[in-house]
Parts: sequence; C-alpha cells; structure tokens
Amino acid sequence: MQYHIEDYRSGDPDIKLAAKGLAHNSALPKETDVLIIGCGPAGLTLAAQLSAFSDIRTCIIEQRSGPLERGHADGIACRTIEMFNAFGFSHKVLREACWVNELNFWRTHEETSKGIYRSGRVKDTEEGLSEFPHVILNQARVQELFLDVMRNSPNRSEPYYDRTLVSIKTDENEFPVIAELEYKDKNGEIRKEIIRTKYLVGTDGARSAVRKELNLELKGDSTNQAWGVMDILAVTDFPDNRMKAIISSPGDGTVVLIPREGGYLFRVYVEMDKLGEGERVRTRTFDSQDLINAANKVFYPYSLDVRHVAWWSVYEIGQRMTDRFDDLSFSDNETAIPKIFIAGDAGHTHSPKAGQGMNVSMQDAFNLGWKLAAVLLGKSPETLLRTYNSERHSIARDLINFDREWTTLLHQVSKGDQSVSAEDVQIYFTRSGHYTAGTATQYTPSILTGSSKYQDLATGYSVGKRFHSSPIVRFSDAKPMHLGHVIEADGRWRLFAFSPQKQTVAESLNALNGLCEFLKSDPNSPVVRYTPKTQEMDSVLDVRAIIPYHFRDINLADIHEFLFPRKGKFELRDYEKVFCFGENEDTNIYLQRGIDLKEGCLVLVRPDQYVSHVLPFNATEELSHFMSNIFVEQH
Amino acid sequence: MQYHIEDYRSGDPDIKLAAKGLAHNSALPKETDVLIIGCGPAGLTLAAQLSAFSDIRTCIIEQRSGPLERGHADGIACRTIEMFNAFGFSHKVLREACWVNELNFWRTHEETSKGIYRSGRVKDTEEGLSEFPHVILNQARVQELFLDVMRNSPNRSEPYYDRTLVSIKTDENEFPVIAELEYKDKNGEIRKEIIRTKYLVGTDGARSAVRKELNLELKGDSTNQAWGVMDILAVTDFPDNRMKAIISSPGDGTVVLIPREGGYLFRVYVEMDKLGEGERVRTRTFDSQDLINAANKVFYPYSLDVRHVAWWSVYEIGQRMTDRFDDLSFSDNETAIPKIFIAGDAGHTHSPKAGQGMNVSMQDAFNLGWKLAAVLLGKSPETLLRTYNSERHSIARDLINFDREWTTLLHQVSKGDQSVSAEDVQIYFTRSGHYTAGTATQYTPSILTGSSKYQDLATGYSVGKRFHSSPIVRFSDAKPMHLGHVIEADGRWRLFAFSPQKQTVAESLNALNGLCEFLKSDPNSPVVRYTPKTQEMDSVLDVRAIIPYHFRDINLADIHEFLFPRKGKFELRDYEKVFCFGENEDTNIYLQRGIDLKEGCLVLVRPDQYVSHVLPFNATEELSHFMSNIFVEQH
Ligand SMILES: Cc1cc2nc3c(=O)[nH]c(=O)nc-3n(C[C@H](O)[C@H](O)[C@H](O)COP(=O)(O)OP(=O)(O)OC[C@H]3O[C@@H](n4cnc5c(N)ncnc54)[C@H](O)[C@@H]3O)c2cc1C
Ligand SMILES: Cc1cc2nc3c(=O)[nH]c(=O)nc-3n(C[C@H](O)[C@H](O)[C@H](O)COP(=O)(O)OP(=O)(O)OC[C@H]3O[C@@H](n4cnc5c(N)ncnc54)[C@H](O)[C@@H]3O)c2cc1C
Repeated sequence: MQYHIEDYRSGDPDIKLAAKGLAHNSALPKETDVLIIGCGPAGLTLAAQLSAFSDIRTCIIEQRSGPLERGHADGIACRTIEMFNAFGFSHKVLREACWVNELNFWRTHEETSKGIYRSGRVKDTEEGLSEFPHVILNQARVQELFLDVMRNSPNRSEPYYDRTLVSIKTDENEFPVIAELEYKDKNGEIRKEIIRTKYLVGTDGARSAVRKELNLELKGDSTNQAWGVMDILAVTDFPDNRMKAIISSPGDGTVVLIPREGGYLFRVYVEMDKLGEGERVRTRTFDSQDLINAANKVFYPYSLDVRHVAWWSVYEIGQRMTDRFDDLSFSDNETAIPKIFIAGDAGHTHSPKAGQGMNVSMQDAFNLGWKLAAVLLGKSPETLLRTYNSERHSIARDLINFDREWTTLLHQVSKGDQSVSAEDVQIYFTRSGHYTAGTATQYTPSILTGSSKYQDLATGYSVGKRFHSSPIVRFSDAKPMHLGHVIEADGRWRLFAFSPQKQTVAESLNALNGLCEFLKSDPNSPVVRYTPKTQEMDSVLDVRAIIPYHFRDINLADIHEFLFPRKGKFELRDYEKVFCFGENEDTNIYLQRGIDLKEGCLVLVRPDQYVSHVLPFNATEELSHFMSNIFVEQH
Repeated sequence: MQYHIEDYRSGDPDIKLAAKGLAHNSALPKETDVLIIGCGPAGLTLAAQLSAFSDIRTCIIEQRSGPLERGHADGIACRTIEMFNAFGFSHKVLREACWVNELNFWRTHEETSKGIYRSGRVKDTEEGLSEFPHVILNQARVQELFLDVMRNSPNRSEPYYDRTLVSIKTDENEFPVIAELEYKDKNGEIRKEIIRTKYLVGTDGARSAVRKELNLELKGDSTNQAWGVMDILAVTDFPDNRMKAIISSPGDGTVVLIPREGGYLFRVYVEMDKLGEGERVRTRTFDSQDLINAANKVFYPYSLDVRHVAWWSVYEIGQRMTDRFDDLSFSDNETAIPKIFIAGDAGHTHSPKAGQGMNVSMQDAFNLGWKLAAVLLGKSPETLLRTYNSERHSIARDLINFDREWTTLLHQVSKGDQSVSAEDVQIYFTRSGHYTAGTATQYTPSILTGSSKYQDLATGYSVGKRFHSSPIVRFSDAKPMHLGHVIEADGRWRLFAFSPQKQTVAESLNALNGLCEFLKSDPNSPVVRYTPKTQEMDSVLDVRAIIPYHFRDINLADIHEFLFPRKGKFELRDYEKVFCFGENEDTNIYLQRGIDLKEGCLVLVRPDQYVSHVLPFNATEELSHFMSNIFVEQH
C-alpha cells in the first residue's frame, strides 16, 4: 500500500482523501457519466471500480430500499478473490469466509435401506491454481465490502435506493441515454424522475428491465431447474458438515451441502423437479419445512435437526443468455459505439450448482469498468467499449456450456442413470476445477489480446488468461510479496519487464536500462505517447521490472531512474517498481512461471489482471504497435 | 472466526453484537471496576482487552483532548503482532505496515573524506522466529486499531478525553480506590471530579502521576540519552532508504534510518549528547533543520533532501524503572492484594534504539488485562493479581539490562571506541534478535508457570515463553491454519492436547477420548470444577486436540463429543476444536515443535499466549493440581 505521500495522515489508509466537488448527494443529479441499474454483485463491482476515478460521475440506483441483507449466492471462486485483492479487501474475505478445502461425494448404498455413504473425496482446488483458496461468504456481505470501497473512495459514493428503472430512450445529446426512474414520494405516491447519462449499464439481474428495453431475450434451456435453498443452523451427525458435500440419491434427488462463514451456519440445496419455461414452482405450496423434510430423506441414515432457518428460497433458473451484452446490433459497422450494456444475470443465468452466477457477474463488471473509465478519461478510443460484448459474451457462452454439461451429469446421477458413475462425476469435477475456480477464462486474440507467438518465453502466463501471481521479493526493502498483488483496481495497465539473465548482473541491468531509456524518452514509447503531461509517468502504463538475481547482488544506483519515478507534490521517489529473488526457490519467478531465463520477456497486463501480450524483451516496436490500438495519443 | 451463531447477522463480524446496559456514555460514571489512566499503547491494550468482557465496567481517561494523531514510537515486534492477532487486527497491520526485512550497518571509511559505506547487512529477523514479520507502523495508528476494538466491543467503549488524574486515595469501600480528576468546563474553568474504582491502572507514561501517588520512583541511569527524531518525506540517494539502517560515524554520532508505512515516509533518529539527570535538551534551541543538518553530515557522501517534516521531536530518555509495578510494598504479606498498578512507561523507560518502549508497554497491559478480568469475574482468586508485578517487573529488568548493553555498545561505536568493532555490533544484534522480536520473554516458575520437568515432551514450547504457533490442518474442514491463531484475546486458558501416536488411529483416539472423558466428567477435572454452570463448557478452559494423523484417516464419529461442545441458544456443535496433519510436512506440528510423537503431551497456555505448563498426556492429576492454584471452584 502506498500512502502518506503528502503528509502523515491519521486514520485508516483504505479511506481515501476526500475529493472536492463530486461527493455523493442524496438528490439524484440530472446528468451523469455512468448510470448503473441495480445493486447486485455486478452493479456494485462496477460502481466500486468507477469510484476509483474521482473525475468520473457515477450513479448507481437500486429498487430495494437498502442494501441486501441476507441470502442469494455464496460461493467465491479463487479468481474472484484475486479481483478482491485488487480492490483491497481480500484480507478481510480470507479472515471472515469459510474456506472450502475438500469436496465429498456421497451416494446411496446398493442396499438402499442403509442410506448414503461417502463414495469419494477430492481436494476442492488443485494445488497451485491460485494463491487464494475457494471460499464461501454470503453475497450480502460481499456487497457490503464493495459498498465500503465506494464509501471510502474520494467521492464517498453511495447507491441511490428506492428507485426503479422503467424505461430508456436515447438521442444525440452529449448525454445520449435518457433513463426514466420511478420512486415513491413521502405520501407513497409514485413519481417519475429523468436522468441523462453518457453510458448506462444494466446490472439489474435475471429479470432485467434494461435487457427488455434493448429488446434482448434470455435464450437457451427451455426448462428451469428449481432448487430449494436454505441457510440453516442445525445439529447433524453427518460427518462432512463443515466440508462441501454433494449427495446423490437416486430416489430423492441431489442435495448439496455448503459450509458457511462463521463456523455454524451452513447451506443446503435440495434439487426439485425441472419446470417448463415460464412455469414456476408455486412457492406458496412450499415452506422451509418441506425443504428440511426433503433433505432429511436424502441424508438418511444421518439426520438434520434444524434449529433455525436464517434464509430460504426456491431458486428457479435455466442456463440462458442473450445474443449480445450491449445495444449494438450485428449489422452495425465496426465504428459503432455501444452506449448501453448489460452485465451479470441480466445477460446470462446459471444453475447455482457450479456456483458461477455471482462470480461471473462480478467479472463482467470488472471487464467493463476500466474500459468505461479509460474512454471517459480520454485514455482510450471509444471503440474499446466494443470489446466488452465480444469478450464477455463468449466467456458466458463457454460457461453456460460447461454449466449445462455439469448439471446434466449431476441430474443424471441423481436419477440413477447407470451410464454415469460417481467416478465420472468426480473426474469431471476435478477436470473442470479451472472453470469453477474462474481461472479457465481466456480471451481470444483481439486489439486487447495478442497472439501466442511468443508464448514460449513465459509458459506460465497464457496470453488471454489472468496473470497468475507468484512469490517474489521487492528489491528496495527485501519484502517477500506476491507479484500479482501489485495490480490494484485503478484502471492502469502494467508492463512486467522480466530482465534476461546475462553473464553478469551489470549486463542484465544493461538490457533493462536500455528498455527503461526507451520507455522514458523514445517518441515511440507508449509511456511517452499515452501519458497525459499533467499526470505521473506511471499513470497509464505502470512498469515493473524483475531482475533475476538475489537482491543483495544488485546496487540501487545501477538501476535506471525510470524505475524510481517521482511522485506527488514533493516529487518523492517511488521505490516499489523493482523485484528480484530472495533465498528460497519459490521466489524464483522465472522457474515458477516458465520464463525464459536467458531471454527474459515483457508481459503486458490489463487493468482487470488479464495477460494482454507476451513479447520478447527487446520487442519495443511490437509493444508500441500493439498498444497504439488501445490508447489515444496525448499530445 | 466464529459468528452467526444465533442467526445470520449482516455487517462486519468484527463489530460485536451490542450488549445492553453498560454502553459508553459521555458522562463519567461514579463507580467503575477498572479505571485506566492514559490512552497510550499500554492503556489502550488494557482497555481493548477488558472491552471483551461486557460484564466488566472499564473507564479509560486521557488528558489529551482526543486520540494521538502522529509521532512517538513506530516499531512493532513480531511478538506484538502475535498479540494483535489475538485481538483480531493483525491482518490490517500486515497490510498497512512497512515490513522490516533487512538491517544494514553503515560506518565511516578509514579515509573519512570518503564518507560512509555499508559495512554489513543481516536479515532483520531470524527465520522461523515467528510466523509474523517485524514491522513499522506509527503508534498513533496502532492506537486507532485498539480504539476500533473497543468501539466494536459489546459495550461500544470509548475513552474519556480531556481529563487529568491529579490524586489517588484509598479506603475500605467496595470500590476502594478514589481518583480525583481535573477537567475544564465550558467556561475554561478547571473542575474536579471523583470516580471510585475497584482497581486503578496507571498507564500514564514516563511522567506518570499514578507512579508519583504511589511514591515510586524511576531509578537507573543517571543520565538521559537524547535523540532527535523526525518523520520525513525526502529525496535521497542513500541506497538503503527503504531498509532499516544504522549509520555510525565516529565524528558525528549515530543515525538510525527507519522506513515507514506507505512507501514514502521514513524516520531518522539522530543521536545527541548524553544529558545529566533532570537536565533537558532545551528544545527551543533546536528545530527540525538542526536535525536535518546533523543527519546530512552523517549521510555524506549521500544527501538527504527533506521536502516535508511530518513530525519531529527531541526525545530524551534514560534506562530506568521503579522498584515495583503495584501498590504493595515488599513488607506486605503474601495475601495482600494490589489495587493499583502501573504499566508501560510509567514503570520503565527505554531508549528508542531497541524499539522496545511501545512493545513492552503493550505486553505489560496484556499480562495484566486477563488477570483483572479473571478476578473481577470470579474465575480466579485475587492473589492472581500479585503475579503482575512479579512477572512484568523481572521482564522489565531483563530488558533494561539488555537495552543498556545495546545502547552502550552503539554509543561506544559512535564515539570511535576501537575495542568495539562493527562486527561485534552486528553479532550482538543478531544474537539479541529474540529480545528485539519480543520472543525472549520467559516467565519463571510460579503459580502460573510450571517447572520444566517435562520440557522434553515438547521442546518447541518452552515453559514460560510464548506459545510459538505453527501450521496445522483443522480436522472438520481440512483448513490449513496456524494453531496459535486459535488464541483470541478473550481471557480464556487453552489446553492443547497433543495425542500420542499409537499402533493405530483407533488406539490414538482411545487415549484422547480417555482424556476427554476425564475433562468432561471427572470431579477433579478443571473443566468441571472451574466452569460456571451457566456458561459454556469451554468458557474457562478451551481444550483443543491434535491428532497426529492425516485428516482423511480419522472418522468424526470416533472422536469424543467433548471435542464438539454445544454452543449458543441452539446448542450447535462447535467444530473447531480438533486438528490434525495435512499433506505437507510443515503441517506436522510434532516435527515442527519437537513433540514426542509416541508420548504426546499436554500444553497449557495462558490467555496472554504464554506456555504455562507442559505435562505428560495422561498427567490429569498434575494438571488438576496445577490449575487449582489459579482457579476458584465454581460450586
Ligand atoms: C432469490 C435469489 C436467490 C439466489 N440464490 C442463489 C444461490 O443460492 N446460489 C447462486 O449461486 N446464485 C443464487 N442466486 C443468483 C445470484 O444471486 C446471481 O447470479 C447474482 O446475484 C447475479 O448478480 P447480478 O448483479 O447480475 O444481479 P442481481 O444480484 O440479481 O442484482 C440485480 C439488482 O438489480 C435490482 N433491480 C432489478 N431491476 C431493477 C430496476 N428495474 N431498477 C432498479 N433496480 C433493479 C435488484 O433489486 C437487484 O438488487 C440467487 C438469486 C436470487 C434473486
Ligand atoms: C514525544 C514522545 C516521543 C517518543 N518517541 C519515541 C520514539 O521515537 N521511539 C520509541 O520507541 N519510543 C518513543 N516514545 C516512547 C513511546 O511512545 C513509549 O514507550 C510508549 O508510548 C509507552 O506507552 P505507554 O502507554 O506506557 O505511555 P504513553 O504512550 O506515554 O501514554 C501515556 C498517556 O497517558 C496520558 N497521561 C499522562 N498523564 C496523565 C494524567 N495524569 N491524566 C490523564 N492522562 C495522562 C498521556 O497524555 C498519554 O496519552 C516517545 C514518547 C513520547 C512522549
């Protein structure tokens, strides 16, 4: 964390210095840069991301009268915690959440009167997949953590509650999107309100009004899967009560048990029958007691003595998605710019079984957030916004496909289909761990994603996949750290310059310093071209160097001053750009991530932590050319 | 973290459910259980500790008109972070603080015109000394974190500012200590206020009024060391700017450079001359520019371009301490009970060079806090309070001795004493790393500290030293954790039962279950004898079992129900008492901490994390006997 740059300031450094002017006000403004509809995980991720930019006006509205208080999703994939780390609250989540370490499979004995037995167990997450675990924390709490980020931001932003979007129009104004909202006045009468915005994002969930206004439709499964879900405090002799367990009983369906944060609470999903499209489980005929009875049947010979139901619901969902995630149409030409977007459940819905809904929704928003900021701040061309749909739509499609296979498989098992063995399920689960962890996402070549031509230079950083962090030592203070954790959700791009190892440290530094000289001074340098004159040198492209030697073998004075950029009104040196090795082999990142030691390489990383390109260490021209499609010249 | 035990509750789980009745009120009460004088690190540690007990009335007063905002001490020893972990905020400190990883020694060239050179460097903290690093975070921020603990406690406690203790009297009342305070009323007139208390603790710093009221005197060095200290934002070419560095210049004295949190700020100490007792550096003749000039002299050939001074002071202190830390006298008999205590700088002062003042002060308070609570809650006899002085006084004495040697050594070096080499300093520093880290503290045998008779059963848990945490896996959910982190600052004792490894898991569990049966039901069991009927089974002695097998090899149903105690109004099972091994060798705690695998052992740990006793696994009688001196029968 870098702070105290202008003076010592008492208090929590996560509470940013308040900016002047744009602070939250209880009256909705007439105009805004970004209007977000809906305070779910997607909307709040986006609002939190945009709150990092005090020059951008963001409004987020929500039809509920306050923050979500309980229920909904609860699985947090490893990849999501990596993102939380960029938002600065992973340490809180790791402390509060329940960690999922094992996954247990249970099924009914051949002799059904014996009830269920544990048929297998696997480690929940493959070793080394991420530096973070898979955890469980209620969606309501996750949303609070994002609300904290917003509240602590320079503009102290807050959602506008009790407001429902009812319609959207557009015109040619500077603020071309006109949103009509409804709210109840003091007398309980419904009133209308108009707000104009440059961009509107519908993160308004599975029954999205924004989607309807765009004439988009969720397509896919013609049936809904219905799951009874309850968060309970209970006493049970079921031994895997604090581990995730999938219990398949041919007669009585599938039950999924998920331990929850705090050590006592747990969640039980009970599979109900498939429903026709539009058809809905008539919730009035159900109550939590029915779910408890159903679960108890499956649990036999174990029992579930429920003492308190903290939340329950019957959650009906199909695997469906829309054709697009923005307001363009496929006939629009390549220069058309989207102004309205949908993200999260508004665009795609998933069975809760793979635990994806909340995670993918947040990743949608994380993908869109920095792009909106880059365009609004004039760093990138408006066409960048086209990549939101192209990237996230195909990811959603992949996921729906995966999700469908997975739920079908489980469903078959629960129906006693003999062609699917418990072992199949287990193997499939293990293989698909990357999906579940959220690390399978890979963007295909585009203006944002380079080719895999130089992938051999860094086999551990797949182009298009998320930057996989690993341990390293910071040069200036010998601090053992995680390289990936230098990525904050601040909209900046990062260039990791892995210096080649030469005969001597001096030669190695020579190569690095050459690169630095280019970046600092060459007219072709992306730093020179894209950094606004009034801003700090690393405000657009944050360059970090890795020198493949032990920190004691390197002299600070031998490193190019570009890597100690001047910061703040006092022009202090920033000492946090250079990394190297420590004693342990696990700080040898070249070994950990398959980097060519003799050649080194450049790894360009997007603001949302995805690897944009891997290039040879001296490929400054290719780097310049690649970046010229993404950035706007600043002179 | 265990929470959500009665229902799902939204919000930050670190904010405890508010209790009824004792919540903070802006008017000072007439009577209190504990009155604490002074909001420094010692006072706030004590107040935070006592705030865990909603039945105890605690008042903390402070002469300043609000929280400390900057300056004072900044070094946080590893041991202190272990304590912070028990208070639930180590994760914040680790995120915010500057980590000290290296210590660099600089001295003047033989050819003095060349200025200084780096004569050596060592790892700041010995590998494996603690699971936590040595960090730097300003005292003001540390104090805020304790204030947060108080604020988030059931009684939402807050200090009473703007109040100065002026005198203390005692009588035979139920609240025998009468404190007279002064405050200014609205018109600026000085008013007096009386508050009665059962116990009074003077944490009022080096010029303690409480100490004076007790007729105690700081004794020791007849001279004060004067250090100029400044927290600055500066530009320098000195290469170890983000590492701790001790620079010894025979002509110009010693300078210590300490990097600070946030990546830019750093602290520079400049040694000034020794002063006679009572004599004071006339601060008016100094200003920060003098310190800057002095530092620049020593830094040559490097330069220090100071852009901003965030705080500066001339800090004069000698190595001194009082004869006692309570209101007893050496002639009092063994049943006399202290009612007034002093802690922290009120009882002992240290040179800032060893970075001990703040750390030892907090450890004093941590030692006293649980004892006051145990006595006030009727768990332990009042005589327990005698151990505060006996334990902390000898620790302070040890430390003063160490501190004196260390500062003398540095002083000699700076004066060019040829009998002390830089190497000596370096070796001495390395050897005394345990002192600096705060892990050298070892209490000697007493009612609280057993003999070392069975030390061989667990060589890694020295009786009288702090419980040294190590990695382990929790049985119920296979979570990789740190065993020491189950210790919260909640006033409870802990018994770690390291089960012996037998021929089979079943035999091993047999031994463990036998112990559990004793603890649960035997009339001699400390759990049976000392746990109040109305309280939960683990409210006095929290038993944790370690089973030396991989978690998949153990069946939950085979473990005694005592290890899954019922909690809360719903009588839910607590699943967090049992630990075992995972895949990696570093989760084999028997190996890590030298525990006799065949014999197992019992490790009894105090509420302040110190090892009270190591006993054979089946020494239930010895355990009962040992604990009978510490606890009060509850029937
Ligand atoms: C009752 C329920 C139970 C669920 N249970 C599970 C589960 O057990 N497991 C699981 O994995 N997933 C579950 N989900 C799904 C999971 O919560 C979603 O996948 C995830 O929340 C998607 O995030 P989102 O931000 O896209 O949408 P949402 O979380 O749905 O957020 C949309 C927000 O927009 C608001 N909104 C909607 N329309 C408007 C409007 N016109 N104007 C203003 N505001 C509007 C809504 O009030 C809501 O706050 C559940 C969802 C629901 C609704
Ligand atoms: C100006 C200054 C600079 C320091 N610089 C350093 C440093 O650079 N490095 C270092 O290691 N240590 C330094 N110290 C020492 C370090 O701060 C102490 O060792 C540590 O704070 C001791 O903690 P404590 O709680 O015992 O006492 P203190 O932190 O001194 O707290 C005592 C508190 O009691 C209050 N108080 C005093 N008398 C009364 C009264 N009669 N009524 C009510 N309230 C009262 C005081 O206002 C103060 O808030 C410095 C101390 C001071 C005062």
